[in-house]
Amino acid sequence: MDDLKQRAVDLDAADPLSGWRERFTIPEGLVYLDGNSLGVLPCTVPARVADAVSRGWGEQLIRGWNAEGWMDLPRRIGDRIAGLIGAPEGSVICADSTSVNLAKVLQAALAMVPERQVVLSDTGNFPTDLYVAQGQLGEAGTLKTVAPDEIAATMTPEVGVLMLTQVDYRSGRLHDMHRLTARARDLGIVTIWDLAHSAGALPVDLAGAGADFAVGCGYKYLNGGPGAPAFLYVRPELQNRVSSRLTGWMGHAAPFAFDPDYRPAEGIDRFRVGTPAILSMVAMDAALDVWDGVDMQAVRAKSLALGDLFIACIDRFAGAHGLHLASPRDGDKRGSQVSWHCPDGYAVMQALIDRGVIGDFREPDVIRFGFTPLYLSYADVVNAANILEDILLNRTWDQPRFHARAKVT
Amino acid sequence: MDDLKQRAVDLDAADPLSGWRERFTIPEGLVYLDGNSLGVLPCTVPARVADAVSRGWGEQLIRGWNAEGWMDLPRRIGDRIAGLIGAPEGSVICADSTSVNLAKVLQAALAMVPERQVVLSDTGNFPTDLYVAQGQLGEAGTLKTVAPDEIAATMTPEVGVLMLTQVDYRSGRLHDMHRLTARARDLGIVTIWDLAHSAGALPVDLAGAGADFAVGCGYKYLNGGPGAPAFLYVRPELQNRVSSRLTGWMGHAAPFAFDPDYRPAEGIDRFRVGTPAILSMVAMDAALDVWDGVDMQAVRAKSLALGDLFIACIDRFAGAHGLHLASPRDGDKRGSQVSWHCPDGYAVMQALIDRGVIGDFREPDVIRFGFTPLYLSYADVVNAANILEDILLNRTWDQPRFHARAKVT
Repeated sequence: MDDLKQRAVDLDAADPLSGWRERFTIPEGLVYLDGNSLGVLPCTVPARVADAVSRGWGEQLIRGWNAEGWMDLPRRIGDRIAGLIGAPEGSVICADSTSVNLAKVLQAALAMVPERQVVLSDTGNFPTDLYVAQGQLGEAGTLKTVAPDEIAATMTPEVGVLMLTQVDYRSGRLHDMHRLTARARDLGIVTIWDLAHSAGALPVDLAGAGADFAVGCGYKYLNGGPGAPAFLYVRPELQNRVSSRLTGWMGHAAPFAFDPDYRPAEGIDRFRVGTPAILSMVAMDAALDVWDGVDMQAVRAKSLALGDLFIACIDRFAGAHGLHLASPRDGDKRGSQVSWHCPDGYAVMQALIDRGVIGDFREPDVIRFGFTPLYLSYADVVNAANILEDILLNRTWDQPRFHARAKVT
Repeated sequence: MDDLKQRAVDLDAADPLSGWRERFTIPEGLVYLDGNSLGVLPCTVPARVADAVSRGWGEQLIRGWNAEGWMDLPRRIGDRIAGLIGAPEGSVICADSTSVNLAKVLQAALAMVPERQVVLSDTGNFPTDLYVAQGQLGEAGTLKTVAPDEIAATMTPEVGVLMLTQVDYRSGRLHDMHRLTARARDLGIVTIWDLAHSAGALPVDLAGAGADFAVGCGYKYLNGGPGAPAFLYVRPELQNRVSSRLTGWMGHAAPFAFDPDYRPAEGIDRFRVGTPAILSMVAMDAALDVWDGVDMQAVRAKSLALGDLFIACIDRFAGAHGLHLASPRDGDKRGSQVSWHCPDGYAVMQALIDRGVIGDFREPDVIRFGFTPLYLSYADVVNAANILEDILLNRTWDQPRFHARAKVT
């Protein structure tokens, strides 16, 4: 692999994002290829959270809601995320979990198409999205799932809502948001995009694509910490015309008037429900500091170059060990992750983690590696591939301890 | 007030809970009578949160879900809360916000009585509860609200669900949970209790009362921090027979099987939805340490004694300043707070806060004081009353700065 090693050295030397790594706390000796599952800790977070606990909560107490600006955090964080996903100010809030946010926008979307209670999605969608749709539709509608490349052809007039995750959590396959959204609009289909594996991973242009709704995750490429609050986007023109059925006091036009009747707030705030989890929100807010000055085009370029390099490394030994690329080889069709079908994939991943290379395993046989351009180097990628080859060559994964299933895989 | 001051000295000297105050961080010179809005910071929290951030997230990264037990936190915290509200192990989870949890149990409750889509509540219920019911019922059912003391008489056969907050957020009036739940059961009415102002404030006996569902708040008497995750109870016999429509991967029987079809987990876990906000959960977990060894009967006794003493103090000058008690004078009918209708109440409360006595104001004219027996002394209460009298006597509240409305009141 000497030529690839040299390629990594050259790429690192020319990397415009190389300076960003120092904005993160990365454990010594770890190659972390799982930022698409839980992003690493940005350096600014510990002090900001400690301050929110000891001074904000401990000293300000209830006064913190005004003095610390807690009440506005969902909007303020939302506006920061908006800048990363091509959304205008005032169109995004940070709140709840991705699943709960998806339920909200799905309710709003379904109410827009009362005669077309059919939600179209693909079989590669992350299961929680399908579960949310099943729960919301109940007996009153239908969830139709087809293969990802059949989506365009399946957009028929009975479909009311198109609900897709832009980047497939398993394969990394990237949907063409502009094309599918435009086609949906032509057919009167309301669009919901799940940006879980997109936000912070690649340039997203919600406004340009004309998407109606979007949701996404705070703890992957946005590095907001374990279970960080999620986000939700509503196209500005829709905001005052639609509502979710999850109506709570924080979405009321005047939460502290204690009016007995619900009256939705103007704009995106109506998609708030209960009191926001401030400590997790403060971590999310601090984590977003790392994006100041980041060029998303540079992120995308490096993301694809990291993936291409990793594929090139693994191509050299994949065949000998029965690995088959599960991701599109063509970068244009791929998000920021690369996966392989791998015999004994679970044990192989455990052996990798044991050697300090963290990726993850997805049923039934997929080993998955995420590329986070802000804190990964090209050298990391070549190192990871070398360790994987060593594990496969020496069958070190075939130790019983690597086969014991953990609760979270 | 010398006799009341002496009474406070005597009560403090005999207080079995006096040692608990040192488990909390209370700003110097503050009399905090707002623990029913945001509880104070328990001493164990800062270090536990800092550890979760820097070591749990920063070093364990994705491995934290197993190594740090994050996946089980909702259940583990739930079991700790269960011990404070008379619920058996495995019947409570900590998750989401109170409003979202109320939506979940309301969906489950309404599905149990398909022919009786009428929710009965009272006009004193916290507005978000009414909003949640309005949102969930939509056009398909009716929310009926009556005066709190008319609830028993209004439980008629068309009512399907009784949804009440045990302690009125404004007046502190306490519903008789046992009596109302028993009557509801006789009439086939499903019961939902909101314990926002009960959990940690007074002994609750969900199992003994036979309540079907309950929800509650983590950030009031449980001291879980601003916007702390809330909790949710389902009667064990019901757990495998009911479901919410908020179905997400964490409520699936096998979240990591990535099954395309939703299949609810056995037991209370099916009421989980998305990924839990771990940092806020860790704070909640640490905050519950203060309850180790607490006798809830002693909490209740002190709570009422604090309230009685405060009422006795204020009785002496209430008439002269137009204050009218808005809470039941009889402790048996009161939660852990006392309120007065007070002319210019908003400004009076601002002047009190300015003098280091923190309570809160509730529209239209209510000044509200919460009593948290674990960290308040009887002397605190007499001090607060003296300062209030001084503010009223000298009309210091009549300064313009005390009239400017803050965002959160």
